Amino acid sequence: MGGKQNPEQRRRELCDAAITLLAREGIKGVTHLKVDRKAGVADGTTSFYFRTSAALIRAAADRIADLDLADLTAATRSESPDDGLSAADGLARLVIRSGTGARLVRSKARYELVMPSSRDAALAEAFSRNQAHFFELHRNVVLGLCPAGTDPEVIDEKAYVLMTFISGLMLAVARGDRTISSPEALHDIITAIVAAAPATSHREGVAAVDG
Amino acid sequence: MGGKQNPEQRRRELCDAAITLLAREGIKGVTHLKVDRKAGVADGTTSFYFRTSAALIRAAADRIADLDLADLTAATRSESPDDGLSAADGLARLVIRSGTGARLVRSKARYELVMPSSRDAALAEAFSRNQAHFFELHRNVVLGLCPAGTDPEVIDEKAYVLMTFISGLMLAVARGDRTISSPEALHDIITAIVAAAPATSHREGVAAVDG
Repeated sequence: MGGKQNPEQRRRELCDAAITLLAREGIKGVTHLKVDRKAGVADGTTSFYFRTSAALIRAAADRIADLDLADLTAATRSESPDDGLSAADGLARLVIRSGTGARLVRSKARYELVMPSSRDAALAEAFSRNQAHFFELHRNVVLGLCPAGTDPEVIDEKAYVLMTFISGLMLAVARGDRTISSPEALHDIITAIVAAAPATSHREGVAAVDG
Repeated sequence: MGGKQNPEQRRRELCDAAITLLAREGIKGVTHLKVDRKAGVADGTTSFYFRTSAALIRAAADRIADLDLADLTAATRSESPDDGLSAADGLARLVIRSGTGARLVRSKARYELVMPSSRDAALAEAFSRNQAHFFELHRNVVLGLCPAGTDPEVIDEKAYVLMTFISGLMLAVARGDRTISSPEALHDIITAIVAAAPATSHREGVAAVDG
Protein backbone atom coordinates (compact mmCIF):
# COMPACT_ATOMS: atom_id res chain seq x y z
CA MET A 1 0.00 0.00 0.00
CA GLY A 2 1.66 3.26 -1.00
CA GLY A 3 0.61 6.88 -1.09
CA LYS A 4 -2.62 8.47 0.03
CA GLN A 5 -5.83 6.57 -0.18
CA ASN A 6 -9.39 7.41 0.51
CA PRO A 7 -10.68 6.25 3.88
CA GLU A 8 -13.04 3.63 2.43
CA GLN A 9 -10.26 1.98 0.48
CA ARG A 10 -7.94 2.12 3.49
CA ARG A 11 -10.61 0.48 5.65
CA ARG A 12 -11.03 -2.31 3.11
CA GLU A 13 -7.29 -2.95 3.01
CA LEU A 14 -7.10 -3.10 6.79
CA CYS A 15 -10.05 -5.51 6.82
CA ASP A 16 -8.38 -7.70 4.20
CA ALA A 17 -5.24 -7.82 6.35
CA ALA A 18 -7.41 -8.75 9.36
CA ILE A 19 -9.06 -11.52 7.32
CA THR A 20 -5.66 -12.97 6.42
CA LEU A 21 -4.64 -12.94 10.10
CA LEU A 22 -7.97 -14.50 11.11
CA ALA A 23 -7.45 -17.33 8.62
CA ARG A 24 -3.90 -17.97 9.80
CA GLU A 25 -4.17 -17.52 13.56
CA GLY A 26 -7.81 -17.19 14.55
CA ILE A 27 -9.37 -14.30 16.48
CA LYS A 28 -6.50 -14.36 19.00
CA GLY A 29 -4.12 -13.48 16.16
CA VAL A 30 -5.96 -10.32 15.14
CA THR A 31 -4.46 -7.36 17.02
CA HIS A 32 -4.36 -3.75 15.83
CA LEU A 33 -0.59 -3.77 15.61
CA LYS A 34 -0.45 -7.01 13.63
CA VAL A 35 -3.01 -5.63 11.18
CA ASP A 36 -0.86 -2.46 10.80
CA ARG A 37 2.21 -4.56 10.03
CA LYS A 38 0.34 -6.96 7.74
CA ALA A 39 -1.19 -4.10 5.76
CA GLY A 40 2.13 -2.23 5.64
CA VAL A 41 0.79 0.95 7.25
CA ALA A 42 2.12 3.12 10.08
CA ASP A 43 1.66 1.73 13.59
CA GLY A 44 -1.57 3.10 15.01
CA THR A 45 -3.43 3.28 11.70
CA THR A 46 -5.73 0.37 12.48
CA SER A 47 -6.49 1.80 15.94
CA PHE A 48 -7.43 5.08 14.27
CA TYR A 49 -9.98 3.38 12.00
CA PHE A 50 -11.24 0.76 14.45
CA ARG A 51 -11.07 1.82 18.10
CA THR A 52 -11.68 -1.54 19.72
CA SER A 53 -10.81 -5.13 19.01
CA ALA A 54 -14.52 -5.92 18.69
CA ALA A 55 -14.95 -3.13 16.11
CA LEU A 56 -12.04 -4.51 14.09
CA ILE A 57 -13.41 -8.07 14.08
CA ARG A 58 -16.88 -6.82 13.17
CA ALA A 59 -15.47 -4.79 10.28
CA ALA A 60 -13.64 -7.89 9.04
CA ALA A 61 -16.90 -9.86 9.30
CA ASP A 62 -18.71 -7.17 7.29
CA ARG A 63 -15.99 -7.29 4.66
CA ILE A 64 -16.28 -11.11 4.44
CA ALA A 65 -20.05 -10.77 4.10
CA ASP A 66 -19.69 -8.16 1.32
CA LEU A 67 -17.29 -10.39 -0.64
CA ASP A 68 -19.51 -13.43 -0.04
CA LEU A 69 -22.51 -11.49 -1.32
CA ALA A 70 -20.68 -10.59 -4.53
CA ASP A 71 -19.92 -14.29 -5.09
CA LEU A 72 -23.48 -15.31 -4.24
CA THR A 73 -24.86 -12.75 -6.67
CA ALA A 74 -22.50 -13.97 -9.40
CA ALA A 75 -23.53 -17.58 -8.71
CA THR A 76 -27.19 -16.65 -8.96
CA ARG A 77 -26.57 -14.72 -12.15
CA SER A 78 -24.93 -17.75 -13.73
CA GLU A 79 -28.45 -19.12 -14.04
CA SER A 80 -29.02 -16.86 -17.02
CA PRO A 81 -29.83 -19.00 -20.06
CA ASP A 82 -27.25 -17.01 -22.08
CA ASP A 83 -24.32 -19.13 -21.00
CA GLY A 84 -26.25 -22.37 -20.60
CA LEU A 85 -25.37 -22.67 -16.92
CA SER A 86 -27.91 -23.79 -14.35
CA ALA A 87 -28.29 -22.69 -10.74
CA ALA A 88 -26.77 -26.05 -9.78
CA ASP A 89 -23.69 -25.21 -11.90
CA GLY A 90 -23.41 -21.84 -10.16
CA LEU A 91 -23.62 -23.42 -6.71
CA ALA A 92 -21.11 -26.17 -7.59
CA ARG A 93 -18.61 -23.60 -8.86
CA LEU A 94 -19.12 -21.39 -5.81
CA VAL A 95 -18.30 -24.28 -3.47
CA ILE A 96 -15.25 -25.56 -5.35
CA ARG A 97 -13.88 -22.02 -5.71
CA SER A 98 -14.32 -21.43 -1.98
CA GLY A 99 -11.36 -23.78 -1.51
CA THR A 100 -8.90 -21.93 -3.74
CA GLY A 101 -6.74 -18.79 -3.60
CA ALA A 102 -8.02 -15.71 -1.80
CA ARG A 103 -11.42 -17.39 -1.38
CA LEU A 104 -9.84 -20.15 0.72
CA VAL A 105 -8.38 -17.49 3.03
CA ARG A 106 -11.83 -15.92 3.29
CA SER A 107 -13.47 -19.33 3.89
CA LYS A 108 -11.10 -20.06 6.77
CA ALA A 109 -11.68 -16.62 8.26
CA ARG A 110 -15.45 -17.04 7.93
CA TYR A 111 -15.41 -20.33 9.83
CA GLU A 112 -13.25 -18.77 12.56
CA LEU A 113 -16.18 -16.43 13.16
CA VAL A 114 -19.03 -18.95 12.96
CA MET A 115 -19.10 -19.84 16.66
CA PRO A 116 -18.16 -16.32 17.90
CA SER A 117 -21.10 -14.98 15.88
CA SER A 118 -23.46 -17.02 18.07
CA ARG A 119 -22.26 -14.91 21.03
CA ASP A 120 -22.07 -11.47 19.36
CA ALA A 121 -25.16 -9.85 17.84
CA ALA A 122 -23.16 -7.51 15.57
CA LEU A 123 -21.16 -10.41 14.14
CA ALA A 124 -24.34 -12.44 13.72
CA GLU A 125 -25.88 -9.56 11.82
CA ALA A 126 -22.99 -9.47 9.33
CA PHE A 127 -23.58 -13.10 8.41
CA SER A 128 -27.37 -13.18 8.64
CA ARG A 129 -27.54 -10.50 5.94
CA ASN A 130 -26.47 -13.16 3.43
CA GLN A 131 -28.37 -16.06 4.92
CA ALA A 132 -31.54 -15.35 2.90
CA HIS A 133 -29.50 -15.06 -0.32
CA PHE A 134 -27.72 -18.29 0.45
CA PHE A 135 -30.99 -20.13 1.05
CA GLU A 136 -32.48 -18.56 -2.11
CA LEU A 137 -29.57 -19.89 -4.19
CA HIS A 138 -30.28 -23.42 -2.90
CA ARG A 139 -33.99 -22.96 -3.49
CA ASN A 140 -33.28 -21.96 -7.09
CA VAL A 141 -31.12 -25.05 -7.54
CA VAL A 142 -33.96 -27.23 -6.27
CA LEU A 143 -36.54 -25.41 -8.43
CA GLY A 144 -34.32 -25.97 -11.47
CA LEU A 145 -34.11 -29.70 -10.79
CA CYS A 146 -37.70 -30.48 -9.78
CA PRO A 147 -40.72 -30.89 -12.06
CA ALA A 148 -42.86 -27.78 -12.44
CA GLY A 149 -45.70 -27.73 -9.93
CA THR A 150 -43.78 -29.41 -7.10
CA ASP A 151 -45.26 -28.53 -3.69
CA PRO A 152 -43.47 -25.37 -2.42
CA GLU A 153 -43.09 -26.94 1.01
CA VAL A 154 -41.26 -29.89 -0.53
CA ILE A 155 -39.05 -27.42 -2.44
CA ASP A 156 -38.17 -25.66 0.82
CA GLU A 157 -37.39 -28.92 2.57
CA LYS A 158 -35.16 -30.12 -0.24
CA ALA A 159 -33.43 -26.74 -0.22
CA TYR A 160 -32.80 -27.05 3.53
CA VAL A 161 -31.30 -30.55 3.15
CA LEU A 162 -29.14 -29.40 0.23
CA MET A 163 -27.98 -26.29 2.09
CA THR A 164 -27.04 -28.42 5.11
CA PHE A 165 -24.97 -30.72 2.90
CA ILE A 166 -23.30 -27.74 1.19
CA SER A 167 -22.54 -26.14 4.59
CA GLY A 168 -20.81 -29.32 5.72
CA LEU A 169 -18.90 -29.48 2.46
CA MET A 170 -17.79 -25.85 2.61
CA LEU A 171 -16.48 -26.39 6.15
CA ALA A 172 -14.63 -29.50 4.97
CA VAL A 173 -13.22 -27.57 1.99
CA ALA A 174 -12.09 -24.72 4.29
CA ARG A 175 -10.22 -27.32 6.35
CA GLY A 176 -8.44 -28.68 3.26
CA ASP A 177 -10.66 -31.63 2.30
CA ARG A 178 -10.45 -32.07 -1.48
CA THR A 179 -12.44 -35.33 -1.82
CA ILE A 180 -14.75 -33.56 -4.27
CA SER A 181 -12.55 -31.39 -6.43
CA SER A 182 -14.52 -30.62 -9.59
CA PRO A 183 -17.76 -28.66 -10.11
CA GLU A 184 -18.97 -31.45 -12.41
CA ALA A 185 -18.59 -34.12 -9.73
CA LEU A 186 -20.34 -31.90 -7.19
CA HIS A 187 -23.11 -31.13 -9.67
CA ASP A 188 -23.88 -34.87 -9.89
CA ILE A 189 -24.07 -35.16 -6.12
CA ILE A 190 -26.29 -32.07 -5.84
CA THR A 191 -28.64 -33.54 -8.44
CA ALA A 192 -28.85 -36.82 -6.53
CA ILE A 193 -29.52 -35.16 -3.18
CA VAL A 194 -32.28 -32.97 -4.61
CA ALA A 195 -33.88 -35.94 -6.38
CA ALA A 196 -34.17 -37.96 -3.19
CA ALA A 197 -34.41 -35.89 -0.04
CA PRO A 198 -36.58 -35.76 1.90
CA ALA A 199 -38.37 -39.04 1.21
CA THR A 200 -41.22 -37.90 3.44
CA SER A 201 -41.93 -34.48 4.87
CA HIS A 202 -39.67 -34.09 7.91
CA ARG A 203 -42.11 -31.50 9.20
CA GLU A 204 -44.41 -34.39 10.04
CA GLY A 205 -41.65 -35.80 12.19
CA VAL A 206 -41.22 -32.45 13.88
CA ALA A 207 -44.96 -32.25 14.53
CA ALA A 208 -44.99 -35.75 16.00
CA VAL A 209 -42.48 -34.63 18.64
CA ASP A 210 -43.42 -31.00 19.22
CA GLY A 211 -47.14 -30.93 18.58
CA MET B 1 -16.03 -30.08 44.08
CA GLY B 2 -15.26 -30.94 47.69
CA GLY B 3 -12.56 -32.97 49.43
CA LYS B 4 -9.62 -34.82 48.04
CA GLN B 5 -9.78 -36.36 44.63
CA ASN B 6 -7.46 -38.49 42.63
CA PRO B 7 -5.44 -36.61 40.01
CA GLU B 8 -7.24 -38.21 37.04
CA GLN B 9 -10.64 -37.19 38.32
CA ARG B 10 -9.36 -33.69 39.14
CA ARG B 11 -8.00 -33.37 35.60
CA ARG B 12 -11.33 -34.43 34.12
CA GLU B 13 -13.18 -31.87 36.22
CA LEU B 14 -10.82 -29.09 35.16
CA CYS B 15 -11.26 -30.13 31.54
CA ASP B 16 -15.04 -30.11 31.90
CA ALA B 17 -14.84 -26.57 33.30
CA ALA B 18 -12.62 -25.58 30.35
CA ILE B 19 -15.16 -27.10 27.93
CA THR B 20 -17.95 -25.02 29.48
CA LEU B 21 -15.83 -21.86 29.14
CA LEU B 22 -14.93 -22.78 25.54
CA ALA B 23 -18.61 -23.17 24.66
CA ARG B 24 -19.52 -19.84 26.27
CA GLU B 25 -16.62 -17.62 25.34
CA GLY B 26 -14.39 -19.40 22.83
CA ILE B 27 -10.65 -20.07 23.22
CA LYS B 28 -10.09 -16.49 24.38
CA GLY B 29 -12.31 -17.21 27.37
CA VAL B 30 -10.27 -20.16 28.60
CA THR B 31 -7.67 -18.95 31.11
CA HIS B 32 -6.19 -20.93 33.98
CA LEU B 33 -7.76 -18.64 36.56
CA LYS B 34 -11.21 -18.79 35.00
CA VAL B 35 -11.01 -22.59 34.93
CA ASP B 36 -10.04 -22.56 38.64
CA ARG B 37 -13.04 -20.39 39.48
CA LYS B 38 -15.42 -22.34 37.23
CA ALA B 39 -14.34 -25.66 38.74
CA GLY B 40 -14.45 -24.24 42.27
CA VAL B 41 -10.84 -25.10 43.10
CA ALA B 42 -8.03 -23.06 44.67
CA ASP B 43 -6.40 -20.47 42.42
CA GLY B 44 -3.38 -22.04 40.78
CA THR B 45 -4.79 -25.56 40.62
CA THR B 46 -5.28 -25.51 36.84
CA SER B 47 -1.77 -24.13 36.33
CA PHE B 48 -0.44 -26.99 38.44
CA TYR B 49 -2.11 -29.60 36.22
CA PHE B 50 -1.67 -27.84 32.87
CA ARG B 51 1.38 -25.60 32.68
CA THR B 52 0.55 -23.73 29.50
CA SER B 53 -2.55 -22.41 27.82
CA ALA B 54 -1.89 -24.75 24.89
CA ALA B 55 -1.67 -27.75 27.24
CA LEU B 56 -5.00 -26.79 28.81
CA ILE B 57 -6.78 -26.45 25.45
CA ARG B 58 -5.31 -29.74 24.25
CA ALA B 59 -6.46 -31.50 27.40
CA ALA B 60 -9.96 -30.11 26.86
CA ALA B 61 -9.85 -31.34 23.24
CA ASP B 62 -8.79 -34.81 24.44
CA ARG B 63 -11.65 -34.83 26.94
CA ILE B 64 -14.13 -33.85 24.18
CA ALA B 65 -12.74 -36.63 21.99
CA ASP B 66 -13.06 -39.20 24.80
CA LEU B 67 -16.69 -38.23 25.45
CA ASP B 68 -17.42 -38.20 21.70
CA LEU B 69 -15.93 -41.66 21.38
CA ALA B 70 -18.18 -42.99 24.13
CA ASP B 71 -21.22 -41.61 22.27
CA LEU B 72 -19.99 -42.96 18.93
CA THR B 73 -19.44 -46.40 20.47
CA ALA B 74 -22.93 -46.32 21.99
CA ALA B 75 -24.41 -45.28 18.63
CA THR B 76 -22.61 -48.11 16.87
CA ARG B 77 -23.73 -50.56 19.53
CA SER B 78 -27.34 -49.53 19.01
CA GLU B 79 -27.13 -51.55 15.79
CA SER B 80 -27.46 -54.71 17.82
CA PRO B 81 -30.55 -56.60 16.70
CA ASP B 82 -31.61 -57.00 20.36
CA ASP B 83 -33.34 -53.65 20.54
CA GLY B 84 -34.40 -53.54 16.89
CA LEU B 85 -32.48 -50.33 16.22
CA SER B 86 -30.53 -49.83 13.01
CA ALA B 87 -27.26 -47.97 12.50
CA ALA B 88 -29.34 -45.18 10.95
CA ASP B 89 -31.37 -44.94 14.17
CA GLY B 90 -28.16 -44.74 16.17
CA LEU B 91 -26.79 -41.97 13.98
CA ALA B 92 -30.05 -40.00 14.03
CA ARG B 93 -30.20 -40.15 17.83
CA LEU B 94 -26.55 -39.16 18.13
CA VAL B 95 -27.14 -36.03 16.04
CA ILE B 96 -30.36 -34.93 17.75
CA ARG B 97 -28.83 -35.52 21.20
CA SER B 98 -25.79 -33.43 20.24
CA GLY B 99 -28.07 -30.41 20.48
CA THR B 100 -29.31 -31.00 24.03
CA GLY B 101 -28.02 -30.58 27.57
CA ALA B 102 -24.35 -31.24 28.35
CA ARG B 103 -23.87 -32.55 24.80
CA LEU B 104 -24.82 -29.16 23.38
CA VAL B 105 -22.11 -27.55 25.53
CA ARG B 106 -19.65 -30.11 24.19
CA SER B 107 -20.83 -29.58 20.59
CA LYS B 108 -20.24 -25.84 20.87
CA ALA B 109 -16.81 -26.36 22.42
CA ARG B 110 -15.91 -28.87 19.69
CA TYR B 111 -16.76 -26.41 16.93
CA GLU B 112 -14.72 -23.69 18.66
CA LEU B 113 -11.73 -25.98 18.14
CA VAL B 114 -12.43 -27.07 14.55
CA MET B 115 -10.47 -24.28 12.84
CA PRO B 116 -7.74 -24.04 15.53
CA SER B 117 -7.14 -27.78 15.06
CA SER B 118 -6.10 -27.10 11.46
CA ARG B 119 -3.21 -25.01 12.89
CA ASP B 120 -2.20 -27.22 15.84
CA ALA B 121 -1.00 -30.79 15.30
CA ALA B 122 -1.78 -31.87 18.88
CA LEU B 123 -5.35 -30.57 18.64
CA ALA B 124 -5.76 -32.20 15.24
CA GLU B 125 -4.60 -35.49 16.72
CA ALA B 126 -7.30 -35.37 19.42
CA PHE B 127 -10.02 -35.14 16.78
CA SER B 128 -8.52 -37.38 14.13
CA ARG B 129 -8.54 -40.27 16.62
CA ASN B 130 -12.34 -40.37 16.23
CA GLN B 131 -12.50 -39.59 12.53
CA ALA B 132 -12.21 -43.24 11.47
CA HIS B 133 -14.94 -44.24 13.95
CA PHE B 134 -17.17 -41.44 12.71
CA PHE B 135 -16.73 -42.52 9.09
CA GLU B 136 -17.28 -46.16 10.07
CA LEU B 137 -20.61 -45.27 11.69
CA HIS B 138 -21.74 -43.62 8.45
CA ARG B 139 -20.47 -46.56 6.44
CA ASN B 140 -22.50 -48.93 8.62
CA VAL B 141 -25.59 -46.78 8.07
CA VAL B 142 -25.09 -46.99 4.32
CA LEU B 143 -24.40 -50.75 4.45
CA GLY B 144 -27.62 -51.24 6.40
CA LEU B 145 -29.65 -49.33 3.81
CA CYS B 146 -28.13 -50.68 0.57
CA PRO B 147 -28.81 -54.05 -1.07
CA ALA B 148 -26.25 -56.74 -0.28
CA GLY B 149 -23.50 -56.88 -2.88
CA THR B 150 -23.38 -53.12 -3.54
CA ASP B 151 -19.97 -52.03 -4.89
CA PRO B 152 -17.77 -51.11 -1.88
CA GLU B 153 -16.62 -47.96 -3.67
CA VAL B 154 -20.24 -46.84 -4.03
CA ILE B 155 -20.74 -47.59 -0.32
CA ASP B 156 -17.75 -45.39 0.56
CA GLU B 157 -18.98 -42.54 -1.65
CA LYS B 158 -22.46 -42.62 -0.18
CA ALA B 159 -20.91 -42.68 3.29
CA TYR B 160 -18.84 -39.59 2.44
CA VAL B 161 -21.89 -37.68 1.16
CA LEU B 162 -23.93 -38.70 4.21
CA MET B 163 -21.09 -37.75 6.59
CA THR B 164 -20.80 -34.34 4.91
CA PHE B 165 -24.53 -33.72 5.36
CA ILE B 166 -24.38 -34.86 9.00
CA SER B 167 -21.35 -32.58 9.64
CA GLY B 168 -23.28 -29.60 8.29
CA LEU B 169 -26.29 -30.56 10.39
CA MET B 170 -24.25 -30.99 13.58
CA LEU B 171 -22.72 -27.55 13.09
CA ALA B 172 -26.20 -26.08 12.53
CA VAL B 173 -27.48 -27.88 15.64
CA ALA B 174 -24.54 -26.58 17.70
CA ARG B 175 -25.52 -23.07 16.59
CA GLY B 176 -29.12 -23.56 17.71
CA ASP B 177 -30.83 -24.64 14.48
CA ARG B 178 -33.73 -26.94 15.40
CA THR B 179 -35.29 -27.35 11.93
CA ILE B 180 -34.93 -31.12 12.28
CA SER B 181 -35.82 -31.94 15.85
CA SER B 182 -36.71 -35.62 15.98
CA PRO B 183 -34.60 -38.73 15.30
CA GLU B 184 -37.48 -40.13 13.23
CA ALA B 185 -37.53 -37.13 10.88
CA LEU B 186 -33.75 -37.27 10.52
CA HIS B 187 -33.91 -41.01 9.89
CA ASP B 188 -36.16 -40.38 6.88
CA ILE B 189 -33.74 -37.80 5.47
CA ILE B 190 -30.74 -40.10 6.03
CA THR B 191 -32.57 -42.88 4.18
CA ALA B 192 -33.33 -40.58 1.24
CA ILE B 193 -29.75 -39.28 0.98
CA VAL B 194 -28.29 -42.78 1.04
CA ALA B 195 -30.78 -44.00 -1.57
CA ALA B 196 -29.83 -41.31 -4.03
CA ALA B 197 -26.31 -40.01 -3.68
CA PRO B 198 -24.13 -40.14 -5.61
CA ALA B 199 -25.98 -40.56 -8.88
CA THR B 200 -22.68 -41.29 -10.61
CA SER B 201 -19.28 -41.96 -9.11
CA HIS B 202 -17.82 -38.59 -8.18
CA ARG B 203 -14.38 -40.17 -8.37
CA GLU B 204 -14.81 -40.11 -12.13
CA GLY B 205 -15.31 -36.37 -11.88
CA VAL B 206 -12.21 -36.04 -9.75
CA ALA B 207 -10.20 -38.10 -12.21
CA ALA B 208 -11.41 -35.97 -15.11
CA VAL B 209 -9.91 -32.92 -13.45
CA ASP B 210 -6.82 -34.29 -11.74
CA GLY B 211 -5.77 -37.20 -13.94
